[in-house]
Amino acid sequence: MKQVKVGIIGFGTVGTGTVKILLNKRDLIKKRTGIDLVLKKVADKNIEKPREISLPKELLTTDAGEIIRDPEIDIVVELVGGTTVAKEFIMEALKNGKHVVTANKALLAEHGNEIFREAFERGLKIGFEASVGGGIPIIKVMKEGLVANKMLAIYGIINGTTNFILTKMTDEGIDFQDALRQAQTLGFAEADPTLDIEGIDSAHKITILASLAYGIPFSFDRVYCEGITKITAQDIAFAREFGYKIKLLAIAKILNGEIELRVHPTMVPEHYLISKVDGVFNAIYVEGDSVGSTLYYGRGAGSMPTGSAVVADIVDIAKGVNTMPLDFSEKYSIKPMEEIESMYYFRFTALDRPGVLSKISGVFGEHNISIASVIQKGRAQGAVPLVILTHKAREKDVLQALEKIDKLPVVSDKSVFIRVEGEEA
Amino acid sequence: MKQVKVGIIGFGTVGTGTVKILLNKRDLIKKRTGIDLVLKKVADKNIEKPREISLPKELLTTDAGEIIRDPEIDIVVELVGGTTVAKEFIMEALKNGKHVVTANKALLAEHGNEIFREAFERGLKIGFEASVGGGIPIIKVMKEGLVANKMLAIYGIINGTTNFILTKMTDEGIDFQDALRQAQTLGFAEADPTLDIEGIDSAHKITILASLAYGIPFSFDRVYCEGITKITAQDIAFAREFGYKIKLLAIAKILNGEIELRVHPTMVPEHYLISKVDGVFNAIYVEGDSVGSTLYYGRGAGSMPTGSAVVADIVDIAKGVNTMPLDFSEKYSIKPMEEIESMYYFRFTALDRPGVLSKISGVFGEHNISIASVIQKGRAQGAVPLVILTHKAREKDVLQALEKIDKLPVVSDKSVFIRVEGEEA
Repeated sequence: MKQVKVGIIGFGTVGTGTVKILLNKRDLIKKRTGIDLVLKKVADKNIEKPREISLPKELLTTDAGEIIRDPEIDIVVELVGGTTVAKEFIMEALKNGKHVVTANKALLAEHGNEIFREAFERGLKIGFEASVGGGIPIIKVMKEGLVANKMLAIYGIINGTTNFILTKMTDEGIDFQDALRQAQTLGFAEADPTLDIEGIDSAHKITILASLAYGIPFSFDRVYCEGITKITAQDIAFAREFGYKIKLLAIAKILNGEIELRVHPTMVPEHYLISKVDGVFNAIYVEGDSVGSTLYYGRGAGSMPTGSAVVADIVDIAKGVNTMPLDFSEKYSIKPMEEIESMYYFRFTALDRPGVLSKISGVFGEHNISIASVIQKGRAQGAVPLVILTHKAREKDVLQALEKIDKLPVVSDKSVFIRVEGEEA
Repeated sequence: MKQVKVGIIGFGTVGTGTVKILLNKRDLIKKRTGIDLVLKKVADKNIEKPREISLPKELLTTDAGEIIRDPEIDIVVELVGGTTVAKEFIMEALKNGKHVVTANKALLAEHGNEIFREAFERGLKIGFEASVGGGIPIIKVMKEGLVANKMLAIYGIINGTTNFILTKMTDEGIDFQDALRQAQTLGFAEADPTLDIEGIDSAHKITILASLAYGIPFSFDRVYCEGITKITAQDIAFAREFGYKIKLLAIAKILNGEIELRVHPTMVPEHYLISKVDGVFNAIYVEGDSVGSTLYYGRGAGSMPTGSAVVADIVDIAKGVNTMPLDFSEKYSIKPMEEIESMYYFRFTALDRPGVLSKISGVFGEHNISIASVIQKGRAQGAVPLVILTHKAREKDVLQALEKIDKLPVVSDKSVFIRVEGEEA
């Protein structure tokens, strides 16, 4: 039986899950694939701290180099995270002829071009199933399952923290800060939640999916990225009145050869399946030109789900598979955010006076923005919310119109807008 | 560049989609995989009839043998359907050393053991992604993406016709016959819809998924199979009152080493994602012991979606991949249907007299069936529906209790029951 030796750098949450699966599923994987995966060594800065699974001393080391340079090890699994030492480990492992498996979305999104070039030139493989969607085998689906498809569009809920927060806000009518605090208490958000709530983690992941879908270089710096910190319970309630939910979507789509890459809160029709993806769960909607609409759902994080993806990669590489000669060198052009077209939701805080709607819609008209529906809430002494849904408009026109509207004397606070997906009314 | 030659037997709906994709995506697939897929020949009884894509005469033949015996052809794609000539074509192709790709779920479910044994002994591959879930890459997901998982449970909506009918009945309150007629008019149901509406097609497909999940021989004759013909608009309405939808689920799960294999209408909590899978769409929920809950959604039929799956299989085989040495020889035991445990929905047609509920619940009590909730609709002169939801009970106890209840003088019509999934109340 073919033996393949594996070394793991990083014995944290995902490392622990991976070790557990490698040990507990060794026989199952042998039976299913004819390959014997041998865990040769695990490296971590701290090998004293107790973990859910305890390993014999000789399997542990504090020196990652022992793994990277071990001539017996075939596959190096990088699970330390971050973009500094992790990169060094991976580049060195490749230089030593090792295949690499990683869950590190930040690293691939930001340095993927360099890493994949190195691997490509050396004929080595990089498994990165665990970098997007946790246990959901979305990378394999896109690379292999949908290999006969041009990917028309990808819409992903690919950050569990923000989806948990938005779900809490929606179900309980609470504010962002309260929901964030709950997420932190439950361990679904970190003490510094910036990467998640500002959409950066989602941007990392959509960078990877877009490169896979379109064969283009990793283009993290070209992703438009807007987080969920400004979403209010009020906007969620209005969205519901119009039949929408607010989700943080990561979007990649192609139209007339131009690729859109963006992460932002999005109003999604509530009867869409992706609207029902709640809590920490992830889902990726992929539209292929042959297959049509598909969706993949599961846990986007966690020790065992992510470990499941890491081990699937190890198995694929051990089988000598891993498919595409991953070469992200397609020529491409990314549409500037100002040029995208979308439907929009606006909330204005306006004095409740006759003529306000006519003034605002006048500005919209000047900028080719056509109104689909309006909600004007009850009469009040001071300012009241005026909510407008538009047909498809160009982002640039919207920004220009808003600048004018925010200067109108009848408009008190700064206006709010959220992009809207779905069929046009 | 590696060239792989393909012959297709059957130029119908799926054959046409496959041919279109092979021709139109030849360059894309070359670029993505480094493999040049050459369509060498297409066989059909009728090669005169106009199709969506027209092929040069020399590519067409009425003799499948020309493909099966062509020494240049590497992969034979069987798309004629049925369990007679299709089987001969596949067995002969294998004997001629060809790899085989098929969308034929009936054939695999009923003769898969013989076919896979032949392939296994000859070291040949059988691709069958298109046999379940149309364009959804569920076979690949289960074989490879979730290779590190023991599959705890599979719940599938894997027949688009019945899901369309149930969705119509649910959304429009119409009866089964009306919904079936609509499905036939729209081309979603065949003139003879038996295979679909009696659950047989779903049973074929769950047979395949169960063999894949548990490594067991194809066991179609062991699948409990009940269709949707007895579902009424009334039961759908009551289900809704309890917070459930009625779906035709194909279920495979393992508990204490015993496998359950069953297809039947099932009440599913309406907040479950799979409840939202409507119309002709399919979805398969897979629970793995590492990955947890996952779900895969897409079109379960159609020329292009199914063609997408066929071509993905061709690519995998061309790459020399196709993973597991498919050997369905695990020892197994399938739980007799009478021994399964489930929650149940009952609808009795009872005279509206005091003491009816006490009589019925008395019988339930004798058979260890515990009631969770009751709806008794308005008072009427004659018989009224009495609806009961139970906690988990054993199927055998339920059947015995029903036999007694149906003999009670206060119960007029034959009782109706539907199995219920979800958490216990």
